[in-house]
Amino acid sequence: MAHRIVTAAVIIIGNEILSGRTQDTNLRDIAIALGKKGIRIAQARVVPDVEREIVATVNELRVKHDYVLTTGGIGPTHDDITAECIAKAFGVPLIEHPEIAALIRKREVPPHIMASRLRMALVPEGAGLIGNSTGGPPGFYKENVHVLAGIPAVMRAMLEALVPTLTGGDIVQSRSVTVYLGESAIAEPMRVLQVDYPDVDIGSYPFNRDGRFGTTLVARSTDAQRLDEVMTKLAQIIVEAGGTPEYA
Amino acid sequence: MAHRIVTAAVIIIGNEILSGRTQDTNLRDIAIALGKKGIRIAQARVVPDVEREIVATVNELRVKHDYVLTTGGIGPTHDDITAECIAKAFGVPLIEHPEIAALIRKREVPPHIMASRLRMALVPEGAGLIGNSTGGPPGFYKENVHVLAGIPAVMRAMLEALVPTLTGGDIVQSRSVTVYLGESAIAEPMRVLQVDYPDVDIGSYPFNRDGRFGTTLVARSTDAQRLDEVMTKLAQIIVEAGGTPEYA
Repeated sequence: MAHRIVTAAVIIIGNEILSGRTQDTNLRDIAIALGKKGIRIAQARVVPDVEREIVATVNELRVKHDYVLTTGGIGPTHDDITAECIAKAFGVPLIEHPEIAALIRKREVPPHIMASRLRMALVPEGAGLIGNSTGGPPGFYKENVHVLAGIPAVMRAMLEALVPTLTGGDIVQSRSVTVYLGESAIAEPMRVLQVDYPDVDIGSYPFNRDGRFGTTLVARSTDAQRLDEVMTKLAQIIVEAGGTPEYA
Repeated sequence: MAHRIVTAAVIIIGNEILSGRTQDTNLRDIAIALGKKGIRIAQARVVPDVEREIVATVNELRVKHDYVLTTGGIGPTHDDITAECIAKAFGVPLIEHPEIAALIRKREVPPHIMASRLRMALVPEGAGLIGNSTGGPPGFYKENVHVLAGIPAVMRAMLEALVPTLTGGDIVQSRSVTVYLGESAIAEPMRVLQVDYPDVDIGSYPFNRDGRFGTTLVARSTDAQRLDEVMTKLAQIIVEAGGTPEYA
């Protein structure tokens, strides 16, 4: 059986994330949506609103991964420089997209405001559009680089339009079991299990919930049967360590 | 007046962030704590639990920035590979740190569990320790690379111990004003203002709160007087556009 691994990189653009002013939530939403389609996020970067950083990051990652998704920097103000940066990364001019411009012109505003709003119609030459059901201007893509808004609700609307257009690979399935034992109590047999199942990614995530320490074990694989085997063995490991497996 | 710009990079290590299972909050906590000390986060990366990726990222960033901080991957299980990776990045052996080992040995557990727990005493040769007031094993640093836990409460405890030991630079001050106008209404005068004040970073962040659209303008600079001037001019811009400046 042929396996197809499809990867994406996410570039989160914005000083507000790096200064701590804003908590990013877009990465997680993108990871979940792409995961369901069989696209794995191989890495993510948070970069400032600085042209040379954005251009260099886009050009490094677009050749390494099947897809690149960016968030942020596509509004009408001076700090929204993503479209310009993508155009520079591809070495093409920035042009006014007639479809976006027509959408923006539908709403009547004074001329100086219209001039600013029309900045949102500028895309790299050759770009296609990504739908935006919130009614605002669309996102766009240039080759394998997909440019989404930073505002979470708008980002999610664009993501919903984008995902069906992407080609996914094998879907990674995930199963988990929780036990109220410390990680160390099960670390050694779990290590052996991971060696026996190199094709299943076994993760161990300790937590403290209402003052009780526990561990959630997560197994991820594209092969459901191997995943079932690992989950059965994890249950055995937990019971042998004196714990009780709990399934969400 | 001499200016000193001190930068850091953050490396968030963990498949669970890239799969969307876990929402990272550590980047924001680190950004706020370092910001108060005059250390700016220049970039952040999220990388999987893969040795070559971690080693390459650490080695790329530690020479570019004053500090590197990592989160995640320092527990007792097979997927905790950060200490090994830092040792490889610096080309030094991984050794058992006597102080951490003594702390771990204080709590009596069966031998096979102790063996797993002692994995948390392994640090790169020459590493120093980072305190952990939660009572668990400490973090560590090797040269300018500081290795913190992934669990947010433990990460914050280590960060609290770490920050006073770092050398900061000029502190970036931040002021903000909110207006219930769309960004486009003020985009053009704000662009002109940004040109006049290249040393002040002016950001515009649109939002939708309870169905009302608005924009928060954030000005950031190391120079309080220039910041005051920009805030006065932003208030004028808002009033001229028909809005009312609101201060948090």
